[in-house]
Amino acid sequence: MAWFNIAFVGFGNVGRALAALLQEKEQVVRERYGIKWRLTGVASRRIGWRIDPAGLDVDALLADGSSGRTLPACAGVREWLAAARADVLMEMSSVVPASGEPAISYLRAALEHGAHAITANKGAVVHGYRALRDLAEARGRGFRFEATVMAGAPIFSLFRETLPAVRLLALRGVLNSTTNLILASMEAGLSLEEAVAEAQALGITETDPGLDIDGWDAAVKVAALVTVLMDTPIRLDQMAREGIRGLSREEVRAARAAGTPYKLVCWAERRGDEVAAGVRPERLPLADPLARADGVTSVVRFDTDTLSLTVSEDDPTVRTTAYGMLADFIGLVSR
Amino acid sequence: MAWFNIAFVGFGNVGRALAALLQEKEQVVRERYGIKWRLTGVASRRIGWRIDPAGLDVDALLADGSSGRTLPACAGVREWLAAARADVLMEMSSVVPASGEPAISYLRAALEHGAHAITANKGAVVHGYRALRDLAEARGRGFRFEATVMAGAPIFSLFRETLPAVRLLALRGVLNSTTNLILASMEAGLSLEEAVAEAQALGITETDPGLDIDGWDAAVKVAALVTVLMDTPIRLDQMAREGIRGLSREEVRAARAAGTPYKLVCWAERRGDEVAAGVRPERLPLADPLARADGVTSVVRFDTDTLSLTVSEDDPTVRTTAYGMLADFIGLVSR
Repeated sequence: MAWFNIAFVGFGNVGRALAALLQEKEQVVRERYGIKWRLTGVASRRIGWRIDPAGLDVDALLADGSSGRTLPACAGVREWLAAARADVLMEMSSVVPASGEPAISYLRAALEHGAHAITANKGAVVHGYRALRDLAEARGRGFRFEATVMAGAPIFSLFRETLPAVRLLALRGVLNSTTNLILASMEAGLSLEEAVAEAQALGITETDPGLDIDGWDAAVKVAALVTVLMDTPIRLDQMAREGIRGLSREEVRAARAAGTPYKLVCWAERRGDEVAAGVRPERLPLADPLARADGVTSVVRFDTDTLSLTVSEDDPTVRTTAYGMLADFIGLVSR
Repeated sequence: MAWFNIAFVGFGNVGRALAALLQEKEQVVRERYGIKWRLTGVASRRIGWRIDPAGLDVDALLADGSSGRTLPACAGVREWLAAARADVLMEMSSVVPASGEPAISYLRAALEHGAHAITANKGAVVHGYRALRDLAEARGRGFRFEATVMAGAPIFSLFRETLPAVRLLALRGVLNSTTNLILASMEAGLSLEEAVAEAQALGITETDPGLDIDGWDAAVKVAALVTVLMDTPIRLDQMAREGIRGLSREEVRAARAAGTPYKLVCWAERRGDEVAAGVRPERLPLADPLARADGVTSVVRFDTDTLSLTVSEDDPTVRTTAYGMLADFIGLVSR
């Protein structure tokens, strides 16, 4: 039996779901993997740099945030990680596509502190993958990010753990659920603006809806997949990125009526030594598995030199994202 | 760099594809995983108990079977494994759904000899899983069987390596490609008998076509999935098994015309402490991902307590099955 001190950066929807899932799975994680854990640090804009090296009261944190003591605002992540005696950082800050910060700085601080670094932040993968991977290796710690693409579905671990010696040649997927829901609303008769407003009212867009409808969120996901699974770093400005802003309600409705609905398709393929990648709206025949990515379901097809696999994650929730982080944690510390 | 002596039982389509794939991937397996291999034993009805502890000539074996020396027919698997100094057995004998033999005996002999045991034989999983798993653990060796269901697609390794602490609640899939092809031929106008004859002419049925059309092959696959992934042994006579023999050409054509084609659906679900499972023809709406399992593509949906994943393997070949065994080998010896 080994004890691990876990620290959270971010305590919004994902952080709260992860705290609840850790509690729910406490017994199986202990009995099956010999892992015990304490939550010793939580940092968020709302509750500050909270710590208790003896273990925060998770129920109290979930109820009203009242557990532990708060470091001074000037403390910073390093002092907080040390005070929390963190063995694992669960990094859940907001995604900034252009830089991957501040997530990368938090993850670097965790690895330098001697903790494993787990993130749900795809910006950190796109902008920091190689540096963080190499730092983790140098420190004998792990850097994992399963929750960044397709919520908790095992995509990175699928390739890392179950597909040795394959070469990924191409991928194609529908990975942004917000545009998927907006296109469905447009098929039902709303204008783009009305559909965006509806999605915002439901709280499912990024803070800036342009990140979804102009294809930024999808592009960051493709870049993360290409960077890791094809071991080829790609910058967002190297990708052909077209969102759904140019589509009218009439075009979207006509495409669905013709049995070839629009989907915002992510793609990447090897061309010689390079990888070409992009995001674009495409009309898909219903027989295409990507066409049946309805609602928040996401789908990706991988073509490798030995097999072709299509993986879809059906109706994920924030709990699914949290599961991706739990799986990373168990995978790292149970070896 | 570590050397491994590999022995094959069976040198038909899968064995030959595996030999060729091992050669093709020799460099990447050596450079990326530090694994070198020799093929030191091959046993089949046609070429007998062939061995060369210094390494058989794979090209010669593939060309005309002329490499190594042949043990006397009375030798048996144990003497052959010892003479081949086998570190790994690749077991590819024909499936016998009712008993899993002789595969189980070969695999047991390999583990008792001190070799890892890898099989493409689903009968061995259904009838021998717990005993072989426990024997492997006692001997500090591995028992793996990724190639038994959905060719080389990572299904068992998906759960073992990437989905810690989940509980599989239910699965549903289309896992028998022969019935899928027969149903497609019936949709195109053939009778069941004509479609079976066509499939036999193409060499894609089991030796006894009843194993496919009466649902035995599908049932054995479900039983393997339930036994391993739900950790609940299930016998074939405990499953509700209905094949496609009762379907007429007219019914099959009418179902397709109505947009709800027949598929031979495999299913399993937990009911309290038990697992119910079966195989039956069902009419599926085209929006169901199982409905788009055309040709030899297979699809399975897994519902767990934390996420729902659908995995399809698109257009596998015998090389894909061989890849499943290669992945098992690398997974076992590179840890």
